[in-house]
Amino acid sequence: MEQVSTNNAFGGAQGVYKHASAATGTEMTFSVFVPPHQPGTKLPVVWYLSGLTCTHANVTEKGEFRRICAELGLIFVAPDTSPRGPDLNGNAVPDDPAGAYDFGLGAGFYVDATQAPFDRHYKMWSYVTEELPTLIADNFPADMTRQSIMGHSMGGHGAITIALRNPGRYASVSAFAPIVAPGQVPWGEKALAGYLGEDRATWRRHDAVALIEDGARVADLLVDQGGADSFLTQELRPELLESACKTAGIDLTLNLREGYDHSYYFISTFMADHLRWHATRLIKD
Amino acid sequence: MEQVSTNNAFGGAQGVYKHASAATGTEMTFSVFVPPHQPGTKLPVVWYLSGLTCTHANVTEKGEFRRICAELGLIFVAPDTSPRGPDLNGNAVPDDPAGAYDFGLGAGFYVDATQAPFDRHYKMWSYVTEELPTLIADNFPADMTRQSIMGHSMGGHGAITIALRNPGRYASVSAFAPIVAPGQVPWGEKALAGYLGEDRATWRRHDAVALIEDGARVADLLVDQGGADSFLTQELRPELLESACKTAGIDLTLNLREGYDHSYYFISTFMADHLRWHATRLIKD
Repeated sequence: MEQVSTNNAFGGAQGVYKHASAATGTEMTFSVFVPPHQPGTKLPVVWYLSGLTCTHANVTEKGEFRRICAELGLIFVAPDTSPRGPDLNGNAVPDDPAGAYDFGLGAGFYVDATQAPFDRHYKMWSYVTEELPTLIADNFPADMTRQSIMGHSMGGHGAITIALRNPGRYASVSAFAPIVAPGQVPWGEKALAGYLGEDRATWRRHDAVALIEDGARVADLLVDQGGADSFLTQELRPELLESACKTAGIDLTLNLREGYDHSYYFISTFMADHLRWHATRLIKD
Repeated sequence: MEQVSTNNAFGGAQGVYKHASAATGTEMTFSVFVPPHQPGTKLPVVWYLSGLTCTHANVTEKGEFRRICAELGLIFVAPDTSPRGPDLNGNAVPDDPAGAYDFGLGAGFYVDATQAPFDRHYKMWSYVTEELPTLIADNFPADMTRQSIMGHSMGGHGAITIALRNPGRYASVSAFAPIVAPGQVPWGEKALAGYLGEDRATWRRHDAVALIEDGARVADLLVDQGGADSFLTQELRPELLESACKTAGIDLTLNLREGYDHSYYFISTFMADHLRWHATRLIKD
């Protein structure tokens, strides 16, 4: 692991790191904020999974999480959203060398691809759930028995599906404007078909609503959704999550924020609420 | 004035606007955050002047000012740092079509240039002190009797010199890592010679330390400076401001922040302190 940069902020350190990933077979970049803490202590970890087109940098620069992580004593980890490399764009979208914003580079959808050519590098599920946690545990003052996970849009999809399929591992899960039913919306249908193939039965393990229908559970779930989000009705469809949670008895807090859009202006506004919600579940005296 | 974008944030609205500037003879872009407020009320205004290479966007995305402006009821205005246009880069730096980071585009130094070819468009002093305030007064719920001004690096230079030369206009002035004596440091010598000519006597009206030596005063002044700022000893030299303020009897609060650099990680950490400092002086019951 190599440190790309480190900047003091809010009494802690905002770092950016890169490493050769075994999961993706590429170099991967991620960011970690370590809040001020007593030497020798280990701190709970919040994972933040980003949305389409993003790298670690979007939330790192615009998420406004450091003040509250410093106050609450939370490590904040932001991975990239796909493998990257000079060949990967063309591989992902052969007919479009510039790449599509919703597939391929920046759009890994937190799955392990099974379809060529993506099955070679697009292993974001294994990267986020296995490889990167080991790296974090080995290199930061992280208490890996206390983890929570959150995300935005495609990253909300990642956070909820990862929490649903790893019961007991995360103390809490939350999302901003998540894709909750990729099997039923255009972004998800394109990505899951491309990475997992046409057999829709294989998609259900990467679809929060389908996972809940199939019996997966979390204790509770916090979602904030902008009412002026241009992707609300076609891609995000929080009503599908609401219905699935109601049927399953999952305690969903769904906050519809009138006038807010899909941007980091929305996310940063409610970031503190989400981090406090995680801290309540991570830090028990 | 045309609205480029508006995003709800922290209960208020973050807007970006552009207009044809009479001062610069170019189109100019700026951002304004209007906090939540009762319709019909007018709010105090904080001006934020950015540093070298920046546009309005840097602080708008990374400054973390909205939460505290919403809490305190402050309008936050962020102008650009120079005129921009397809011809202006070549005009500014004839031998370097790509432009220099510290002169020309993104480096207006908040002066009205007197030297050709810059005297045609580089009129950032008039733009920030005359034209833009009129536009703000006409288009936003701004109480122009209650203004404060702050800035970063080159923008700290701008904020302090503007406050010193407009006594009574700003309730308060503060800066992050300001250039305090451009006449004595490489960045400033290059810019002031380029925009104002070789007669150093003309530079003193755009040099905070020289202005104080020549009798200009503010009631008090807040400066935060990172101790790990790579520009500290050669370009910023806060000790020169400290000495001038001491001699002049200006109440300078100079906070040296060990380990902090010149970036928005530093600025965002101390933004709330600065806005509270301004609010104390702007909002008197």
